[in-house]
Amino acid sequence: MDYDRANSVGAKAPDGFRFAGVAAGLKKNGADDLALIASDAPCAWAAMFTQNRFAAAPVLYDRALLAENPAGLRAVAINAGIANACTGEQGLEDAATMAAAAERALGLGPRACAVMSTGVIGPRLPMGLLEDGLGRAAVRLAPDGWQAAARAIMTTDTRPKIAFCRAGNAALLGMAKGAGMIHPNMATMLVLILTDAGLEHGALASMLPPAVNASFNCISIDGDTSTNDTVLLAANSAAGPAAPDLFGPALTGLCTDLAQQIVRDGEGATKFITIRLEGAASPADAHRAAQAVANSPLVKTAFYGGDANWGRILAAVGYAGAEVDPARADLWIAAGTPAGVPAPSPLQLVCRGQPAGYSEEAASAIFAGKEITVIVGLGLGPHAATVWTCDLSHEYVNINGHYRT
Amino acid sequence: MDYDRANSVGAKAPDGFRFAGVAAGLKKNGADDLALIASDAPCAWAAMFTQNRFAAAPVLYDRALLAENPAGLRAVAINAGIANACTGEQGLEDAATMAAAAERALGLGPRACAVMSTGVIGPRLPMGLLEDGLGRAAVRLAPDGWQAAARAIMTTDTRPKIAFCRAGNAALLGMAKGAGMIHPNMATMLVLILTDAGLEHGALASMLPPAVNASFNCISIDGDTSTNDTVLLAANSAAGPAAPDLFGPALTGLCTDLAQQIVRDGEGATKFITIRLEGAASPADAHRAAQAVANSPLVKTAFYGGDANWGRILAAVGYAGAEVDPARADLWIAAGTPAGVPAPSPLQLVCRGQPAGYSEEAASAIFAGKEITVIVGLGLGPHAATVWTCDLSHEYVNINGHYRT
Repeated sequence: MDYDRANSVGAKAPDGFRFAGVAAGLKKNGADDLALIASDAPCAWAAMFTQNRFAAAPVLYDRALLAENPAGLRAVAINAGIANACTGEQGLEDAATMAAAAERALGLGPRACAVMSTGVIGPRLPMGLLEDGLGRAAVRLAPDGWQAAARAIMTTDTRPKIAFCRAGNAALLGMAKGAGMIHPNMATMLVLILTDAGLEHGALASMLPPAVNASFNCISIDGDTSTNDTVLLAANSAAGPAAPDLFGPALTGLCTDLAQQIVRDGEGATKFITIRLEGAASPADAHRAAQAVANSPLVKTAFYGGDANWGRILAAVGYAGAEVDPARADLWIAAGTPAGVPAPSPLQLVCRGQPAGYSEEAASAIFAGKEITVIVGLGLGPHAATVWTCDLSHEYVNINGHYRT
Repeated sequence: MDYDRANSVGAKAPDGFRFAGVAAGLKKNGADDLALIASDAPCAWAAMFTQNRFAAAPVLYDRALLAENPAGLRAVAINAGIANACTGEQGLEDAATMAAAAERALGLGPRACAVMSTGVIGPRLPMGLLEDGLGRAAVRLAPDGWQAAARAIMTTDTRPKIAFCRAGNAALLGMAKGAGMIHPNMATMLVLILTDAGLEHGALASMLPPAVNASFNCISIDGDTSTNDTVLLAANSAAGPAAPDLFGPALTGLCTDLAQQIVRDGEGATKFITIRLEGAASPADAHRAAQAVANSPLVKTAFYGGDANWGRILAAVGYAGAEVDPARADLWIAAGTPAGVPAPSPLQLVCRGQPAGYSEEAASAIFAGKEITVIVGLGLGPHAATVWTCDLSHEYVNINGHYRT
């Protein structure tokens, strides 16, 4: 796969989609906060939603819409600033009104637009502002407006997250909103993936879960699963039929790129950390142990401080609930983020449950870096998992101590 | 129960125990780091240990000792600074050597002394320093030396944690070391509880788990379960036979007192927060949901910032894995820490899944306080749970970014 990042020269959006971002007035600072994406032709689509029991109104709306109309999606409206979560019946009504306003602005029939929201939980959406904003967005739609749309859905993100990819004749474009309340348990952020590939709902619905499991479900910022998380994949067939065996890997690659962008821009993140768990007795054990390391505040603060306090890594593995034999456990660290595994020239810190004779300076030099790979070997079986996470910094506390103010 | 706190006038330690704290040279700042506690008579004892798979050498040593000699404990030696965890066979040998050194210094026979360690994971204990320190501690033992012993086991604790309690004729004294890597999953810190009650091993072993479950297993600082956590209860019978129905509640009260002291002195803690989960469909659901709120970095940073961002509380309940019906969920907050429940004059924030019409100033005033009670009502059943936690502050990041340096 060859990626064309947002700012690369060869970036090409899929045919037949138009994008806009406008300021509807939901963000206090006046920044763009409403994205509208329209497809010239009806799209087959698939989606995955948060498993949080307090799923937000737009999640409930989209779930029902997908069941009802899996081949006729024409638009997606996304607002930032207010999550429309914990808003009861009124919230459901507001989500439907938002979708209808987008459909009206685009001259579409009913039940053709999906909605997403992100922001503060509790308050009602300001429907007047949204309807006005959607009207203005509709007239600004442009095939190259994806950057404006990706910017409009940001909350505490410091930069838009966009990825491009090709699969045969088809182009894929993904945009994501991440930053905080990021923890895999199905989709943990807002992600919109558009393609001009010709694929039916069934094919999309079977390819999306493995791609999400290998990407968005392998990252963690703070262990919190949001009420609004959604990954939506829409295909308009403009590029003609696509081969699933070509499209599936491209989709996974695109999702992995976006997932890693989300971690790199995690709230307060100063470091990008790859946790590789090998030698587990089962795939579930591998993932569980890697996640425990990625979520440990003690591990994450040690990374922030550049302290080679590896005991915390093993302690997290030890309470993960995975099968562990201390006498078989190995631990390595390496500088950088490996394209594949194993990482280049790792430094062994622990050998069979005991400190290896390593140089403290060498370890500190690796921990001081901006990109760190941790490899835990359990020595119990053939199963492995990779999780990406970031450090826990003062800035995370700053951002989240005063999020609403 | 009437508590005599460490610094209260009526504090009375149980008869027949002597205590010392000395500086063995493990802490870089020269502070006391080795506690020795001796009993004039053999003690029946019980203990609970960490469930971390990388259980430290002293945990493995004590487990075996308890199985072998549950009625003949004469001493406990505790060091701070080095955890003797992830140290393999050598660590086990060192734990045994530490116990033997204490026995020798006290003129005891073999297998009469338990050991505990806390501190950095990985390094070997400096056996020469420890043996020398134990010799000096043995000659300093005094019946009123409990404060010195409690100080010697501190790591990032800012103050010793001591509690006294009476049960009929018997006295109980508890001391604890907490601060970080605190998360219930059986005992999550070092706790030593001494009593002159006349109780057999079997009675102690049956009373300790419910007391621990209602206290130390209901607190969380950072969600990390340590490799070394131990709660040890020893009874020397100096006060004659004790009634279990009097002793059990006293033990639970003492443990709750110590558990709350640990939270109040959590690393970087500026606030004490009580999470009360009511109306759950099962006891496990109640505990799970309360723990999810207590562990959420987003909730904890919002408490730190004094931001009444209650959506994060419901979001945490929503991903806890507990049965939830959003349309039945209620949320209240109250100032202070309730002696019982319900809390005094709570402010309702959420009624049946939607924002209640509350005053934002009133909510902010409560969130700005140092003691906050959160009450979540699920409306699904009769089960409830209470968990105590603290906020997540800049200081937590400071402490844990550079713990070893």
